[in-house]
Amino acid sequence: MYTPLLQHIRKYVGLTDDEGMLICSKLKSLQFKKKEYLLTPGKICKANYFVSKGLLRLYIINQKGNEQITHFGLEGWWLTDFGSLDSKQPSRVYLQAVEDTEVIAWEPATQEELIHAIPQLDTYFRKVLQRAYAAAQRRIEFIYCYTDEERYRYFSTHFPGFIQRVPQYMLASYLGFTPQFLSKIRAKK
Amino acid sequence: MYTPLLQHIRKYVGLTDDEGMLICSKLKSLQFKKKEYLLTPGKICKANYFVSKGLLRLYIINQKGNEQITHFGLEGWWLTDFGSLDSKQPSRVYLQAVEDTEVIAWEPATQEELIHAIPQLDTYFRKVLQRAYAAAQRRIEFIYCYTDEERYRYFSTHFPGFIQRVPQYMLASYLGFTPQFLSKIRAKK
Repeated sequence: MYTPLLQHIRKYVGLTDDEGMLICSKLKSLQFKKKEYLLTPGKICKANYFVSKGLLRLYIINQKGNEQITHFGLEGWWLTDFGSLDSKQPSRVYLQAVEDTEVIAWEPATQEELIHAIPQLDTYFRKVLQRAYAAAQRRIEFIYCYTDEERYRYFSTHFPGFIQRVPQYMLASYLGFTPQFLSKIRAKK
Repeated sequence: MYTPLLQHIRKYVGLTDDEGMLICSKLKSLQFKKKEYLLTPGKICKANYFVSKGLLRLYIINQKGNEQITHFGLEGWWLTDFGSLDSKQPSRVYLQAVEDTEVIAWEPATQEELIHAIPQLDTYFRKVLQRAYAAAQRRIEFIYCYTDEERYRYFSTHFPGFIQRVPQYMLASYLGFTPQFLSKIRAKK
């Protein structure tokens, strides 16, 4: 269950077998059933989660009372509410398993301890965060500057597996339009 | 001119005077006049910029032909187009000085060289990126879930100096509404 994590780290930095074993011994692997929550509003986010199997979604309830999905986390992705995790303030978001999901939870104290023992993890997290930030920059650009249909076309070209896997109403929420509009675009194909 | 950068690094990690001098000797400080461009579409982004004085904005031209500002960079902030910087692909964005501005340019090769010599810079960049990513997460939440007026109220409460300093039409673009709407909200105060 730790293999996807170690593979992911080794894509960015070197890691000996001993270092890999140390990481596995310090971290908890957690299982969540479909629809189970890792975090709900009012609770303090406790960890950064690496998805080793399954799919997570992060959403908020908007002013109209609807679910607005802001992030997904597939296998090999990291997901958390950094705002709450860093500040130790209550979260405003829901973090939920879309499918039966297995995550590796990195609590801040354990992360610091592991980085101290394995300094190249600092490089790993820096590079992962840089990619995540680049994706967030692009997401903001998309929301403001692309039409609904262009956003859908971009995602279906660049992430076809993702588009197939995510329930249609969740994809519509993530892309910022109604399920009806999504059906219309798909019918046009 | 390097003082704000060294102070910023020291907020996150320790740094000896020798290490500070090494950083200053390796990095270029660049001056840009108001309205001058650091990056334009079609060019490859060369560096991550630390703003030591002045103000930068990052914008794109949207489908309607209007400027859409997606990020600002005030003193003590980092700003770049990571998508272009990481992939070495041409950028789609404009990075421009809003005022006469002084930046410290970190080119990737120099950054790696400095991190190799001063390993705690890895921690520094990880922490800075984590904050930037948290802010981007919050920004995405805001765009989707808050009304125009709520976004304005949040910014004027949390960043009053920023609201005062940025030209009104740029603030409207950043917050995603028209300058007319901004005048209306301000009049209501």
